Amino acid sequence: MKTERTTLKRLPKRGTYDRDTLYAILDEALICHVGFVVNGAPVVIPTIHWRHEDTLYFHGSAASRMLRSLREGVEACVTVTLLDGLVLARSAFHHSMNYRSAVVFGTAREVTDREEKLRALDALVEHVVRGRSAEVRGPNESELRQTMLLALPIEEASAKIRTGPPIDDEEDYGVPVWAGVLPARLEFGSAIPDERSAATIPDYVTRYARRAS
Amino acid sequence: MKTERTTLKRLPKRGTYDRDTLYAILDEALICHVGFVVNGAPVVIPTIHWRHEDTLYFHGSAASRMLRSLREGVEACVTVTLLDGLVLARSAFHHSMNYRSAVVFGTAREVTDREEKLRALDALVEHVVRGRSAEVRGPNESELRQTMLLALPIEEASAKIRTGPPIDDEEDYGVPVWAGVLPARLEFGSAIPDERSAATIPDYVTRYARRAS
Repeated sequence: MKTERTTLKRLPKRGTYDRDTLYAILDEALICHVGFVVNGAPVVIPTIHWRHEDTLYFHGSAASRMLRSLREGVEACVTVTLLDGLVLARSAFHHSMNYRSAVVFGTAREVTDREEKLRALDALVEHVVRGRSAEVRGPNESELRQTMLLALPIEEASAKIRTGPPIDDEEDYGVPVWAGVLPARLEFGSAIPDERSAATIPDYVTRYARRAS
Repeated sequence: MKTERTTLKRLPKRGTYDRDTLYAILDEALICHVGFVVNGAPVVIPTIHWRHEDTLYFHGSAASRMLRSLREGVEACVTVTLLDGLVLARSAFHHSMNYRSAVVFGTAREVTDREEKLRALDALVEHVVRGRSAEVRGPNESELRQTMLLALPIEEASAKIRTGPPIDDEEDYGVPVWAGVLPARLEFGSAIPDERSAATIPDYVTRYARRAS
């Protein structure tokens, strides 16, 4: 997966090209940022992504400008970032963040095959809330037509990870300020039923988490 | 701030061009995704941004490929997304997410003025951890030289927000599945002092939060 473009020039020790590491980041994240070029200028749009084997999927309205651009075969750059903590050093300069990020470059294809589309849309529900796809009403023919599905092969990609404490200059360890890491993570609160929901809150909602911990 | 490019074509009722709304999103977020074009192809990189009045700042190593591209005056698209919840509908099709996002288009300039640079780097520390800039050792001349600072005027921008419960098709309200919102937010755990930190954990760390609640 390493190419000239995905070879990290800055801080290469933070980089990895290992698929398991990359896929764990892609699978934990609920949102990605898709970059593409429109009239020579960059556009970056947040959207939901999900992975099946070595393919990254996106979807949206058939009327979406982003999807219509991408299905014409323009190049995309998909970036996912998970923030893990604030790294508070003794000098302003050495402050940092702990994070895991993944970048995938490629050209998407539109998925028009009905079976692949249905399978992928089921996988989307499972990606966001495991256990839910069997319970909800699946897409009908009109919804399938309204939904554009794009597939991006995960071929040119890299991940970047920072972990651990701040690293200060030796002469700064005497600065009398607290230093360390403030961990961060996406947390989920108490579920809010909609006004017409009579069903019991399922376990997959009350115990929802993105990461085994 | 509304231009042809920032006029939302899809779901325009979710869009806003109000500066207070936009700035609240930019100020709460700890990470943005910067898109720019390299050899005709999109690149999207996560980085820290911060705002002072109507300017968005970024920084990084003077050796950074991203910053070197941007300071040459190429166009950038900066996107910030805050995930507020999972919206679980009765049909797969009407699942959604609650979020607040902001997009800023523009061309950055490199900040070389020493005073503006010092002020902006102080503002960065305050943006991430309010109260900390006065306590840490500030940048020395060598660090200032190693740090490239870019400023992007916030002129062409928009925000997009989704809130509230799922909206199902009328005929689906009888589907016997729980429906509602699972709220999400970035939470901060117990601070982890580094091995050589003797100072007490400051209040601004123990009470850290991104959003008044």
